[in-house]
Amino acid sequence: MEILDRIRIVLVNPVHSGNIGGAARAMKNMGLDNLWLVAPQRFPDPEATWRAASATDVLDAARVVPTLDEAIAGCGLVVGTSARERRIPWPVCGPRECAGELLDVAARQPVAILFGREDYGLSNDELQRCNLHVTIPTHDAYSSLNLAMAVQIIAYEIFSGAQARTGNAAVQQDWDQPLATAGDLELLYTHLEQTAIRTGFLDPARPRMFMPRMRRLFGRVRMDAMELNILRGLLAAMTEHHAGRNGEVPPGAP
Amino acid sequence: MEILDRIRIVLVNPVHSGNIGGAARAMKNMGLDNLWLVAPQRFPDPEATWRAASATDVLDAARVVPTLDEAIAGCGLVVGTSARERRIPWPVCGPRECAGELLDVAARQPVAILFGREDYGLSNDELQRCNLHVTIPTHDAYSSLNLAMAVQIIAYEIFSGAQARTGNAAVQQDWDQPLATAGDLELLYTHLEQTAIRTGFLDPARPRMFMPRMRRLFGRVRMDAMELNILRGLLAAMTEHHAGRNGEVPPGAP
Repeated sequence: MEILDRIRIVLVNPVHSGNIGGAARAMKNMGLDNLWLVAPQRFPDPEATWRAASATDVLDAARVVPTLDEAIAGCGLVVGTSARERRIPWPVCGPRECAGELLDVAARQPVAILFGREDYGLSNDELQRCNLHVTIPTHDAYSSLNLAMAVQIIAYEIFSGAQARTGNAAVQQDWDQPLATAGDLELLYTHLEQTAIRTGFLDPARPRMFMPRMRRLFGRVRMDAMELNILRGLLAAMTEHHAGRNGEVPPGAP
Repeated sequence: MEILDRIRIVLVNPVHSGNIGGAARAMKNMGLDNLWLVAPQRFPDPEATWRAASATDVLDAARVVPTLDEAIAGCGLVVGTSARERRIPWPVCGPRECAGELLDVAARQPVAILFGREDYGLSNDELQRCNLHVTIPTHDAYSSLNLAMAVQIIAYEIFSGAQARTGNAAVQQDWDQPLATAGDLELLYTHLEQTAIRTGFLDPARPRMFMPRMRRLFGRVRMDAMELNILRGLLAAMTEHHAGRNGEVPPGAP
């Protein structure tokens, strides 16, 4: 998707090379390959390559620049990831809303999302270069996300948002059989009730809630036609088996 | 949040210890600490501890079990992560919907979400133990997510969903019975298969897709405990009835 090519993932002063590789893989998994590294501590590095797995092409194409300004040059929107409350409140949003904003602008112009250092995040100065801040929700007990994990969450929201826009719903519900019809279901219920009576499980004089419970069960599952046929076949096998062995005519037999 | 304590993260046969540590950190960041490891290749392991960072308490409390059945025992909902198209399509959803389903049931009962091996994912047999499958959307160019990253995305959706619910007088699904557990379902499947064989409906030499289709049907309906008991009672009545008619001794008869 062309729109995804306009979204830059910018890692500012990453310290651990493994995180660069992990971020590259997370990006490629989500259709992003525009990686910018601002003054990384070590790059290239075998640890990054190992963690990137099959996304080494993203590493190879990464742009390494000395300053943040170079990484965000020409971008119509710059979003900074931030865990902390800042002294000056900034417009802030969650990952999903952030993805939406990035996609809106990326339809026409390059955009960037910035991830800070592992230990400190983005500086106030860097955050003030951003149009918008995004905070990934975390539990109070441990709010420090791994850098590559943060990239993964944002990339996931961007890709999901892009899919939703192109009309490719994230997951296509695919089924191998048509659904059973209401009429088929009624035949199943009748068959089930007859079998329950014949085997002595159900006393027709005291039916209690047997059939309502069976209707609730088989009604809510949206049974497909083959599943219904299997169940009816199983019920028939029981009835015919008895009948055949005892010389009876099964119900409904010609 | 108490509800998050009822959500089990189950890693099936993880190979790389680093991923176990990464998953533990991802969990704790999102308020989850209920980690189950089914036959991990190496655990405990220094690599896991290193990657867990400040989430070593999650590793320390992890339950290591030899089989999947032990990890999902007592769970009212079991969701399996799956990247592949399966021969029989199963009910499938995306991460957000999956989180909603898990939270719905976890309000009252334990639930589990399963993550498969790094190289192969979950087996067909394991996937057929699930009520529901979840697929994390990925780009076609590289669809293989790192295991810990997959845990991070699902954990993020669970935590986001839980946050959205708190303070929200969310619509509570009201039901008269607890859901059947994974163990109860296995007993039902065994019972169903035996009955199908005894009546001649199922030829054990040519089982075709009978049991997978029955697992898909009864797995996706979220059967409650009473419904399951009724079905088992009906199967037992059929078996005894059949045995009586044919002069056999029913299995389990005194």
